[in-house]
Amino acid sequence: MGILDNLNGPSSLKGMSLKELEALSREIRQRLLQVVPKNGGHLASNLGVVELTVALHSVLSSPEDRIIWDVGHQAYVHKMLTGRYKEIESIRTYGGLSGFPKRAESEHDSFGAGHASTSVSAAVGLATADALAGKQNFTVAVAGDGAFTGGMIYEALNNIAEKDLRVIVILNDNEMAIAHNVGGINRYISRLSTSTRYLGFKYRLKRFFAAIPIIGRPLTVAARGVKNFVKRLVWRDNMFENLGINYYGPVDGYDIARLQGILRDAIRGKKGCIVHVRTVKGKGYAPAEEAPEKYHGVPKGGVFKASGGFSSVFGDIMVRRGRTDERLCAITAAMCDGTGLSAFAEQYKDRFFDVGIAEEHALTFGAGLAAGGMHPVFAVYSTFAQRSYDQLIHDAALQKLPLILALDRAGIVGEDGPTHHGLFDVGFMLQIPNSALWSPECYEDMQRAFDKAFEFTSLCAVRYPRGGEQDYDRSIYTDCGTMSYADFGTGKDVAIITYGTITYNAIKAAEVLAGERGVGVRVIRVLRLKPLDFATFSELLNGFSTLYFLEEGVKNGGFAEHATAYMTERGMTEDRKVIIRAVDDRFVSHGETKRLYEECGFTPDRIAEEICKKAGV
Amino acid sequence: MGILDNLNGPSSLKGMSLKELEALSREIRQRLLQVVPKNGGHLASNLGVVELTVALHSVLSSPEDRIIWDVGHQAYVHKMLTGRYKEIESIRTYGGLSGFPKRAESEHDSFGAGHASTSVSAAVGLATADALAGKQNFTVAVAGDGAFTGGMIYEALNNIAEKDLRVIVILNDNEMAIAHNVGGINRYISRLSTSTRYLGFKYRLKRFFAAIPIIGRPLTVAARGVKNFVKRLVWRDNMFENLGINYYGPVDGYDIARLQGILRDAIRGKKGCIVHVRTVKGKGYAPAEEAPEKYHGVPKGGVFKASGGFSSVFGDIMVRRGRTDERLCAITAAMCDGTGLSAFAEQYKDRFFDVGIAEEHALTFGAGLAAGGMHPVFAVYSTFAQRSYDQLIHDAALQKLPLILALDRAGIVGEDGPTHHGLFDVGFMLQIPNSALWSPECYEDMQRAFDKAFEFTSLCAVRYPRGGEQDYDRSIYTDCGTMSYADFGTGKDVAIITYGTITYNAIKAAEVLAGERGVGVRVIRVLRLKPLDFATFSELLNGFSTLYFLEEGVKNGGFAEHATAYMTERGMTEDRKVIIRAVDDRFVSHGETKRLYEECGFTPDRIAEEICKKAGV
Repeated sequence: MGILDNLNGPSSLKGMSLKELEALSREIRQRLLQVVPKNGGHLASNLGVVELTVALHSVLSSPEDRIIWDVGHQAYVHKMLTGRYKEIESIRTYGGLSGFPKRAESEHDSFGAGHASTSVSAAVGLATADALAGKQNFTVAVAGDGAFTGGMIYEALNNIAEKDLRVIVILNDNEMAIAHNVGGINRYISRLSTSTRYLGFKYRLKRFFAAIPIIGRPLTVAARGVKNFVKRLVWRDNMFENLGINYYGPVDGYDIARLQGILRDAIRGKKGCIVHVRTVKGKGYAPAEEAPEKYHGVPKGGVFKASGGFSSVFGDIMVRRGRTDERLCAITAAMCDGTGLSAFAEQYKDRFFDVGIAEEHALTFGAGLAAGGMHPVFAVYSTFAQRSYDQLIHDAALQKLPLILALDRAGIVGEDGPTHHGLFDVGFMLQIPNSALWSPECYEDMQRAFDKAFEFTSLCAVRYPRGGEQDYDRSIYTDCGTMSYADFGTGKDVAIITYGTITYNAIKAAEVLAGERGVGVRVIRVLRLKPLDFATFSELLNGFSTLYFLEEGVKNGGFAEHATAYMTERGMTEDRKVIIRAVDDRFVSHGETKRLYEECGFTPDRIAEEICKKAGV
Repeated sequence: MGILDNLNGPSSLKGMSLKELEALSREIRQRLLQVVPKNGGHLASNLGVVELTVALHSVLSSPEDRIIWDVGHQAYVHKMLTGRYKEIESIRTYGGLSGFPKRAESEHDSFGAGHASTSVSAAVGLATADALAGKQNFTVAVAGDGAFTGGMIYEALNNIAEKDLRVIVILNDNEMAIAHNVGGINRYISRLSTSTRYLGFKYRLKRFFAAIPIIGRPLTVAARGVKNFVKRLVWRDNMFENLGINYYGPVDGYDIARLQGILRDAIRGKKGCIVHVRTVKGKGYAPAEEAPEKYHGVPKGGVFKASGGFSSVFGDIMVRRGRTDERLCAITAAMCDGTGLSAFAEQYKDRFFDVGIAEEHALTFGAGLAAGGMHPVFAVYSTFAQRSYDQLIHDAALQKLPLILALDRAGIVGEDGPTHHGLFDVGFMLQIPNSALWSPECYEDMQRAFDKAFEFTSLCAVRYPRGGEQDYDRSIYTDCGTMSYADFGTGKDVAIITYGTITYNAIKAAEVLAGERGVGVRVIRVLRLKPLDFATFSELLNGFSTLYFLEEGVKNGGFAEHATAYMTERGMTEDRKVIIRAVDDRFVSHGETKRLYEECGFTPDRIAEEICKKAGV
C-alpha cells in the first residue's frame, strides 16, 4: 500500500509535506512505468510532468480551479491524482479511462483535448465564464512548447490580457527541444538556465540579455529550427510582458517547493500570466530520457516493432519519387517520424519542410509551393487535416493548385479514441470541388494511387489507415482501373461496396455468406472515391439485388450516401435493397480497433448478420 | 486621356519621375471614386493603398517579383496597374474582373485570396519554390494589421527566417486602428510617428523607447483592444527582429519617394523582412476618411441603405434574448457590424467578445464559455466558419457543449464571389455528430429556429443568407413543426424540397408549373435540416411521383444526397423520380446573385424547365 492508494482526491495533497509529495511523485513514476508499457500510451511526456502535476494539485483546488491539458496526452498523472488511480490500469482500453482528458469522465477534466494549441482558448473561455459569474477561481492551461508553434495560441494570447482574467498558462518547456534546436543563443541559454536553475519570482531574463552585449546579433543570425520562434520570444520575455501578461520563470519542473512558490506567486498576481517550467521528457527513466521521441508513444506490450505499415510504404514512395522528380517537396506539421518522412527528410533536405504544429500554414505554404511550380505533398494525420479545412478549399482547390494530401491514420485508430479517429476526411474531400481522392487498401494500390496523384492537376488526397495491410491473397480481385472486385459463391445476390483496409472484413463476411448460406456475393473494392467512375461502378453492380455499403467513415455526407443518391437519381436503385453500414452520426470511442469495429457493426460476423437480416438472404 | 490609358503594364512605372507617379496616384484615386461606388466594393481600403501600390510596382518587377494581397479586397489599384485598367469598370460584375486577386485572371495575381491571414504562408511557399529554382526575385505579402490577429500569420512568421527567404511582408497599418484602440502608449506613438514621419532606413523604434523611462510600465497596463497585441509587438519591434526578420519603418504610406527608398533597402537586405507602412483608410476622400468602417464595403450604386435583412433581425433576436438570459454571450471574429451585433455589443458589453480575425480561437473560446455554463453564440459568415471546422468537431460537438453558430451569408453571396459563397456549411454540419442545423427562409422562421437553438444541448447552427427575406404571402404554408409545405395545382406530381431563401424560386417555379402546365406541385420548405424529421418528411412526400431537391449548397454530401440516401435505404424512392439541383462539384463565380442563380440553374424558369424535362410532366 502506497500513498496513492489512500488518496482521497486531489485535496489530500494540500496537507502533505514536501517529503510526502516527493515520495508521492516517486510512487506515481513507478506506477507509470508499470501501466503505460502494458497498455501502450504516452510515457515520456507523463514522466516529464509528474512533479508539475503534483505541485499544481497541491496548490490549486480542483475542480473549482480548472486545469486544462493541451493535447492532453500528458494527463495520466492528473487522472491518478483525481480519483482515478484505481482505474488507471484500464487506461486506453475499451470501456476504460481515456488516454486524454475527458469531461464526461471526471469533473476534474475541465476541457477535453487531443489536438494541439486549444488549451489557452478554452481557458480564456472558462475563465471568462467564471469571471462573469463572480467566481474567484483560477484556470490553468498546461501547454508544451510545441503547442506554441500553432497559431491558435497567439489568437488566444491576443485575448488574454483584456479583462484581467485569472488564467495561468504553464509553458511546459522540454529541455530536449533546446538540445535539438542547437544554435549559439540556445546553447548559451541552456547553460545559463542550467546554472542558475530557478531564477526567482518575476525574474526577467531580459535583464541578463541587456547586460551581455554579444547576444543581440547572434540572436537574429544563429538560431534555427521551428521551435526557435517560441524560444526567442520566451527567452527575451518581451512578448508576454508586452501583452500585459506577467511572466514567471523559468523554473525547474522537478523542484516541487519552487513550483509551489511560483504558482502561489502567480495566483497572488490575480491576472493572466505565463509560468515557464522546464521539464525533461521521460524524466526518471533512463531509456526514455535518452530517446524521448521513441518513448513519446509507447506501443501496447511495450515492445517496439520495426516501423512498417502504410506510413513506411508512403515514405518509400516519396524517397523513390524524389530521385526522378526534383520538384517533389514533403511537408509535415511536426510529424516527420509518424508520417514516415524521415528518410525523405534526410535525403532531400532542401525539399523537406517541418513547419511546426501548424496545419493551416502547412496547407497554404504547400499551395504557395505549388503555385511556384513545385510538387508538394503534405503528409498529415486525417484528424489533424481537419485543421486545414478552409485552406483546402480557399487556397488549394479554388485555385486548382496541384497539392497532394497524404492522409495518414484515416479511419478508426484504436486506443487514441474519438479525438484521433480519421472519420471525416472522405466526407469533406467529396465536397471540395476540383479534387480527387484515393483510398488504397493495400500497398500495391497505394503505389498506384500515388502514381495517379503525382499526375493530378489540382488538390488531391490519398488516405490510408494506421498500421499495415491485411495479409491475404489479393489475386482474387479483377482489376477495373479505379476499382476492383472479387466474387464469392454463385449468383448475384449481394454486392458489398467498400474501400480501405476494412475491405478485409467484407471479404471475410462474403466467405461466410457464400460458404454457410450459399449467397452469391461480389465485393467491390473502390480505390478512387472521387471522382467515382460511375460507368464501371454501375456495370459491376448490374444484376445484384442488394447493395451493401461498408464505410469506415461518417455516414452523413459520406461516400455511400453520395453513391446511393447518384444511383437513385438515375433509377439504378429501383427494385434493389440498399444498406449503408457506416459511422452513423456518432463519435466512436477508444480501445482496441477490433472492439471499436464491433461497436460500429464492422466485424465480419456483424456484416454477414446484417446482410442476412436486412436482405433476407 | 490620362497616364493610366497609356500604361503598358507595370514596367511603365519604372521610368516615371516622382511627379509622374504622384500624378498617376491622383488619377487612380479619381478613378476609384468613379468606379467603386458604381459597382459596389471596397472603397476605403483601396483609397488607402494607392501610393503604396504605385511604389511597389515602380520598384519591383511584377510578375517576376510576386505581390500577394492579404484578404485581397485592396487589390483594385494593383489590377489597374497590371494591364486591367480598361476592364476595371467590370469589376465585381458577372464575367468581369474579380474583386479579389485571382490567378486565372492575370499572371500578376500571384496568389488569390478572400479570407484573411494567408498571404505570408503563401509568400513563404512561393519564395521557397523560387529559391529552390535558383531565382533571385522577391515575394511581397501585403497584410493589414487586422490580418495579424489571425494565428496563421504567426505560424508563417515562424517559418520565414529559416532559409533567408526573399519575402517582404508589408504591414499595412491603418492609422485609424490606432485612434480606435486608444491608450497611453498608442497616443504617444501616434504623436511620435506623426511628428517624425519617416524614421529612416533600418531605424529601430526600440531605441526611442529605451530612452524614455516612462514607457515600460504604461505599455503593459494602459493599452487595450484586440489589435493592441499587434501594435505592441510591432512598436517594440522585438518580435520581428528576434525572429531574424529585419524590420523597416514605420514609413508614411503616401510618401512615394520614401516608400521607394525603404523598399529598395528591403531588397538590398536579401532576406525576410517586415516593412511597416502607415496608411489611412479612405485616404483622399473626406467622407471615407471620416467614417472608414462605413466605406469599407460600398454598396452598388453607392447608396447606403439602413442596414436590415437577416443580420439585423439576428441582432434584434440577440438583444431581446439578452434581457432574459443573463448567460447569453455573443462572439464575433472582427465582424461586429456585419453580423448585426452592434446593439448587443453596446447593451451587454461584458458578454460581447470581438476576438479579432481568429475563427479558430473564437470557436474554442466559445466552447470554453459553454463549458463554464454560459450560452455563447458565435456569429460568423458561413465561409469564414470553415476556418473553425476542426474546432467545431473537436472542441464543441465531441464534448456536447451548447454552442450556437449564427451562420450569416450562407448560400450565394453575389459580387464577392467564390471565396465568399457559403456553400459548404450544410455539408459539414450534417457530418458533425451531436449537432443540429436550421435554415430559415424568413424572419419568423429565424426567430423559431433561434428559440430552438437556445434550448439545444450541444453544438448547433442557424444559417441564413446575405440580405433579407423575400416579400410574399407566407400564409400559403401549412406548418408541420420543423418544416412546412404549400400546394400548387391539383394532383401529386412533383414535390420540390428546399430550404433557405431560394424557396421563393421554388414557389415561383411551382406557380408556373401549376398554372401553365396543370402540374400538381408541393413545395416543402425544410426549416430544421438536422436532425431531419423523417417521419413527417416522408408523410409529406406520400404519393408524389417526382421528388425535386433544390439546394443552394454543395451537392456532394449535401442535404439532398443525405435525404435521398435515407429514403432509398427505406425503399421510399421505388417508382419515383428523384432529381437533385444543387451546386454540383464546382465553384460558383462572382456577380449579381441573379446571374449566379442562372449559372447554377436556380432560377424559377430553369427549375420549371428541368422538372418538365426530367420528370416528363
